[in-house]
Amino acid sequence: MLDTIIIGAGPAGLSAGVYAARYLMDHVIIGQLTGGLITTSHKVENYPGFRSITGWDLGLKFVEHAEGLGSQIHMEEVSRLETLETGGFRVSTNGGQYEGKTVILAYGLQRRKLQIPGEERLAGKGISYCATCDGAFYRDKVVGVVGGSNTACEAALYLADLAEHVYLIYRREALRAEPADVKLVEANSKISIVYSTNLVEALGASQLEQIRIDKPYNGSELLALDGLFIEVGSYPNHDIIADLNIDLDDDKLIRVDSGQRTNVPGVYAAGDITTGSDKFQQVVTAVSEGAIAAMNVHADMKKGRVYWCS
Amino acid sequence: MLDTIIIGAGPAGLSAGVYAARYLMDHVIIGQLTGGLITTSHKVENYPGFRSITGWDLGLKFVEHAEGLGSQIHMEEVSRLETLETGGFRVSTNGGQYEGKTVILAYGLQRRKLQIPGEERLAGKGISYCATCDGAFYRDKVVGVVGGSNTACEAALYLADLAEHVYLIYRREALRAEPADVKLVEANSKISIVYSTNLVEALGASQLEQIRIDKPYNGSELLALDGLFIEVGSYPNHDIIADLNIDLDDDKLIRVDSGQRTNVPGVYAAGDITTGSDKFQQVVTAVSEGAIAAMNVHADMKKGRVYWCS
Repeated sequence: MLDTIIIGAGPAGLSAGVYAARYLMDHVIIGQLTGGLITTSHKVENYPGFRSITGWDLGLKFVEHAEGLGSQIHMEEVSRLETLETGGFRVSTNGGQYEGKTVILAYGLQRRKLQIPGEERLAGKGISYCATCDGAFYRDKVVGVVGGSNTACEAALYLADLAEHVYLIYRREALRAEPADVKLVEANSKISIVYSTNLVEALGASQLEQIRIDKPYNGSELLALDGLFIEVGSYPNHDIIADLNIDLDDDKLIRVDSGQRTNVPGVYAAGDITTGSDKFQQVVTAVSEGAIAAMNVHADMKKGRVYWCS
Repeated sequence: MLDTIIIGAGPAGLSAGVYAARYLMDHVIIGQLTGGLITTSHKVENYPGFRSITGWDLGLKFVEHAEGLGSQIHMEEVSRLETLETGGFRVSTNGGQYEGKTVILAYGLQRRKLQIPGEERLAGKGISYCATCDGAFYRDKVVGVVGGSNTACEAALYLADLAEHVYLIYRREALRAEPADVKLVEANSKISIVYSTNLVEALGASQLEQIRIDKPYNGSELLALDGLFIEVGSYPNHDIIADLNIDLDDDKLIRVDSGQRTNVPGVYAAGDITTGSDKFQQVVTAVSEGAIAAMNVHADMKKGRVYWCS
């Protein structure tokens, strides 16, 4: 029986792995996307210590750090998490089963969809949810980005470097990204910001050709695009913890105490899926929460606060 | 008037600077030790992203990151922090005065002394509070380290690489460092651990010659040493905030809410001096708290939650 099973291989899970290794705890990290969602970021400039680094490289550094200290990362999909009658937990994946005295939930967020007609049909055919992954296909083409967050602005800036033109389409009147990014977007002549506008349909036969918007832009409700990048945020998918009665808040985030403990003894959580760090969802806060979670797994086990029999 | 004045140039303060710059806030970082106390660490292996790095290099990376984004770091000593009648704050240093709408306190901890006879007289004459700074003077000599924490164990390990022999003297029965470090210390044939023992006096004419301990070791209460490294923890020195009524907890740490706000509107705090991060005092938690503090300075100013007139 492992000391702890870390579910999620992004910044939070990998940092939990670094600290679990430092505390000499038997552990495993299970995740589908090694390095986490951050690996799809074009550039990260706000993780202190790295002035500017691609998300891919930063994710890799976290992976190398955890593995260098002895963490094992299993690229598997978790299907179920259950409590054992004898105490502790069982995690079932497409690769097998794991039993642990404790669990650290760090499975992060999933990308939100627009849920408009044509979106599902044209996904992968001009519609993408990851500018860094797919941007290179749109060199000298005309693309749209939907959203007004940091991620949306960073996608627009990245795409402006290679596309002919970028339309940044946002439903509100002002972008909500960090001011540094907003300034860059506004100053970029290859980006047109289309405010107070919603997408209502994605059109095209076998490939995206145009989008319909709910407010005319340059006199038309149709905008011709070669590519569309949907960057409208993320949400937590808690399916795998359905069998446990874990407290969520109104935003569906896992409620944690200052030590990253959930309401269920033995279950800890870290990263974007929790109420921790004042809900400020950043690489640096995720990494900190992972460290705190692992520290408390160790401390609680030592103090007999985690119960199991085996 | 600046948007925020960051007091402290360690990991917490520099991270606050990185985020303040990203939020395009006018700010300054004031600190005596650029990079913070971590710069005196021999090796850091638990800041995710850097598998193994000297404290000096890590501190420098934080400095370069903040400065690269436009933060100005002023190496000055803060003497006083006061509220202005017109709102906002004034910070007085040995280099001048600064006025800011908000303040982020991130001045970290100071090293604790043993307070035994001979300690003050022989400080700098065989007695040191920084193994990395002074260790090189003790090549092939016999040294002592006092303490049982991570820092003490790391100092002992560092010194074992160069000294002839290291006595690690601790008042308790078991070291309280991370198990990974404890294992390395125990396995090192150049380190003798002297448990359940207190130092009572440091002896020597013009230079440390021996120490007196309260429990005989190998039959003697005197132990001959060329050097003594005192690593018995740190404490917060809150002298500069004496004029403000900032809430402290029983450990004399600044009470902060989940957004790193103190009880005084406009005053935020981050790093080892706060009750944040479950009081887990690490580089990674300090850096996260600095980010959260700067984010909330920005958010609170935008929402009019910080009051000043000018």
